Amino acid sequence: MEAKSISSVQNPLVKNILLLKEKSRERKKTGLFVVEGQRELELAQKGGYTLTTFLYCPEIWSDHHLKDVLVNSKPEIIQITRPVYEKIAHRGTTEGVLGIMKVKEHGLENIHFKNKQPLVLVAEAPEKPGNIGALLRTADAAAVDAVLIANPKSDLYNPNIIRSSVGCIFTNQIGMGSTEEIIQFLQSNQIKIYCAALTASKNYVDCDFTDATAMVMGTEATGLTEDWLQNSDQNIIIPMQGEIDSMNVSVSAAILIFEAKRQRGF
Amino acid sequence: MEAKSISSVQNPLVKNILLLKEKSRERKKTGLFVVEGQRELELAQKGGYTLTTFLYCPEIWSDHHLKDVLVNSKPEIIQITRPVYEKIAHRGTTEGVLGIMKVKEHGLENIHFKNKQPLVLVAEAPEKPGNIGALLRTADAAAVDAVLIANPKSDLYNPNIIRSSVGCIFTNQIGMGSTEEIIQFLQSNQIKIYCAALTASKNYVDCDFTDATAMVMGTEATGLTEDWLQNSDQNIIIPMQGEIDSMNVSVSAAILIFEAKRQRGF
Repeated sequence: MEAKSISSVQNPLVKNILLLKEKSRERKKTGLFVVEGQRELELAQKGGYTLTTFLYCPEIWSDHHLKDVLVNSKPEIIQITRPVYEKIAHRGTTEGVLGIMKVKEHGLENIHFKNKQPLVLVAEAPEKPGNIGALLRTADAAAVDAVLIANPKSDLYNPNIIRSSVGCIFTNQIGMGSTEEIIQFLQSNQIKIYCAALTASKNYVDCDFTDATAMVMGTEATGLTEDWLQNSDQNIIIPMQGEIDSMNVSVSAAILIFEAKRQRGF
Repeated sequence: MEAKSISSVQNPLVKNILLLKEKSRERKKTGLFVVEGQRELELAQKGGYTLTTFLYCPEIWSDHHLKDVLVNSKPEIIQITRPVYEKIAHRGTTEGVLGIMKVKEHGLENIHFKNKQPLVLVAEAPEKPGNIGALLRTADAAAVDAVLIANPKSDLYNPNIIRSSVGCIFTNQIGMGSTEEIIQFLQSNQIKIYCAALTASKNYVDCDFTDATAMVMGTEATGLTEDWLQNSDQNIIIPMQGEIDSMNVSVSAAILIFEAKRQRGF
């Protein structure tokens, strides 16, 4: 195979990749983002993403694996030297492969439910990439029907979100929209809205989550906005009995989601 | 009040504080560690820690609050200038106060249970400070009777653990020891050992956690060591149905702990 190769860290593509990693504006403008690692590249393609450019460092990664990594895409293939790889890869990453992929549309009109009583996780304005990654990992493990992000604060294709999701960004059905749009979407799909709120009086274990259910989580700092609390079918609380009573948002979400899974018999 | 003051970043105490923050060796040698923030300082003293030195920046923090922050300690009190504060405080921290405190002993002989059927969280060799912080937050919220750390990999008083625990490092009863010691401790206290393991076949929701219970969590990378799995009363699994099936250790711990709380009626 004849592959293009890049040996200079000054190459324009190197600069473009760094821009795509660092600037959400650049990702929005181009509709592209960067994925590192063979497993992540495979998962993304299986999840319906298109790989447009595949880069590998022959000193680290053997192109014997090429047909594994090109699941359903025919990308431009580029060999890079180790200095180029080290320039564009996340520090400490040693796999020797990365790719440029097309972003997906995450409008709510693209969300479809196979399950008649879907279980949906909603997060309003989540901020920390690590929390979003952990939410996506829990959502994958629970096989929830969709993850909806209301009033997103950050671009989904932030490299820190991709990394902390350990690939779960590609395995979940993810929708994004304003709080108003998502409330409307849930109501029109007859999905009951359960809002996690420290001001609620109903213990989550006293609810029936076997019907179509959306678990809605706010931020750790300020909780959910009034729009959610007023449009909810039930505000719920995880009773806390400590001195600080502050749980991580991804932890709270997991407790609620797995209570629903328990009630549904997994 | 006559307070000592420091205006030079070259002052030996400034260097000592930086050493205490950065080097676990220094913390071990001196038996001291650094706590930032008024709320954290108060929580630590309420949790039985002794404040030996209290530093504040009068440009930021008013000593009108002094009697609030000195809960049960009579520390040396030192005024510092803003450049000194910025040198020793965590970047972005703006409260203007910090203190040097004495570490506690965390031997198992210091662990005492008020509850006849204690609920205990055990983590073997947890690595990431953020995970340890999240575990402690969950433990506080669930008011577990103790958190035991087996074969600790890092010093508990690492500033990143303190920060990510949002004070819960001070509100939990924390014991540390080797895996062998902790197994022995649990057995001699007739606490049932439930080991979370991906190889287990028993669904956690099918267990009775109303008796004295220890939930034992391994690392995300390698799980629990054989010692735990062979000495457990029951190995348990959280059924996962996704494509990646990888949950954060603090998330898994929370699911198990709150299932026990549910069974116990909170």
